[in-house]
Amino acid sequence: MDLADRHEQRRGRPRSEAVERAIIEGVVALVEQGVPLAEVSIERVARTAGVGKATIYRRWSGREELFCDVLRAVQPEDPEPTGESMRDDLIALLESMRLRGLANRSSALLHNVLAQMKSQPRVWAAYHATVIEPRRRATLEVLRRGVENGELRDDVDLELVSDLFTGPMLVRSVMRPDAELEADLPEQIVDSVLRGLRP
Amino acid sequence: MDLADRHEQRRGRPRSEAVERAIIEGVVALVEQGVPLAEVSIERVARTAGVGKATIYRRWSGREELFCDVLRAVQPEDPEPTGESMRDDLIALLESMRLRGLANRSSALLHNVLAQMKSQPRVWAAYHATVIEPRRRATLEVLRRGVENGELRDDVDLELVSDLFTGPMLVRSVMRPDAELEADLPEQIVDSVLRGLRP
Repeated sequence: MDLADRHEQRRGRPRSEAVERAIIEGVVALVEQGVPLAEVSIERVARTAGVGKATIYRRWSGREELFCDVLRAVQPEDPEPTGESMRDDLIALLESMRLRGLANRSSALLHNVLAQMKSQPRVWAAYHATVIEPRRRATLEVLRRGVENGELRDDVDLELVSDLFTGPMLVRSVMRPDAELEADLPEQIVDSVLRGLRP
Repeated sequence: MDLADRHEQRRGRPRSEAVERAIIEGVVALVEQGVPLAEVSIERVARTAGVGKATIYRRWSGREELFCDVLRAVQPEDPEPTGESMRDDLIALLESMRLRGLANRSSALLHNVLAQMKSQPRVWAAYHATVIEPRRRATLEVLRRGVENGELRDDVDLELVSDLFTGPMLVRSVMRPDAELEADLPEQIVDSVLRGLRP
């Protein structure tokens, strides 16, 4: 048992946000020093953060899960759909994609970690399961409510509908790093797809 | 002057398709043997294809241009818009993206070359300029005709319109290698975006 854990135990709190933050900042510090993600071991993170390995393993099952939380900590937060208007919830979801796109461009750290995570299949699979997949489910839930509210046609496959809204934003924010990401892009995409492009 | 060139000269043809094909097949053979693209030099291609370096340089300015033609040779061909119906031309463009997506998944060679080209900035820039950019211009041209014909609203930025049609297909064919690419996907995307998703 290391110091941080003894400290936690004394306060009777099973999880301490401060300890978690120190561990996540330890990973960030290593990456900022230029250490390749593949060489960031739990042992090295523990040493950097000044905690014992057990403290890390009590919170994360391994490197994969830890790196996902590091990304979540440095990326803009995901919005919470309000459930009142499908249109507004979709715009909020697309706006968070836009902000993530801007953050990935401006933060060398984020760009670097994301690129390295992609080349490590287990890490990428964990990121997909814990970050990307929940976003996808949240989008489908917003669309399902839209069909119930009468805001959305009920004769189009929702997986396709989801791609019709998010695809144009992903292409600009992820695939074309030089594409413009104007502030009104989310609204333009959502309203154009809802209304349709026929005159 | 090497044999191939002397042969060409005798027949009075400045460019020989057979020689070009042999050179392109030389690159393909090297990649299939597992040679990293970064180690595929003009000299090595010349030796593999049984031609002189000058024969290659007479046709391509360098490795970048040559690799672009190799990709073009192994990828499904781009369609020629007919100009009769914007809807049909858009479906044909999306269908060619779908076929390229399927080809990238089934051909290890294609997948491999594309991934390696992306990591070589000069090669990727050449591919972008000679392959991706012309496709983009062709799409914009189809949309411009659509506005003229009255098939498309004239109050939405055509760059955005282009992303509204191609984004959903790119997300499935490029970003999500496990996504389904059903035969009727191009038609579904084009018709859904044209009609709009409001009930």
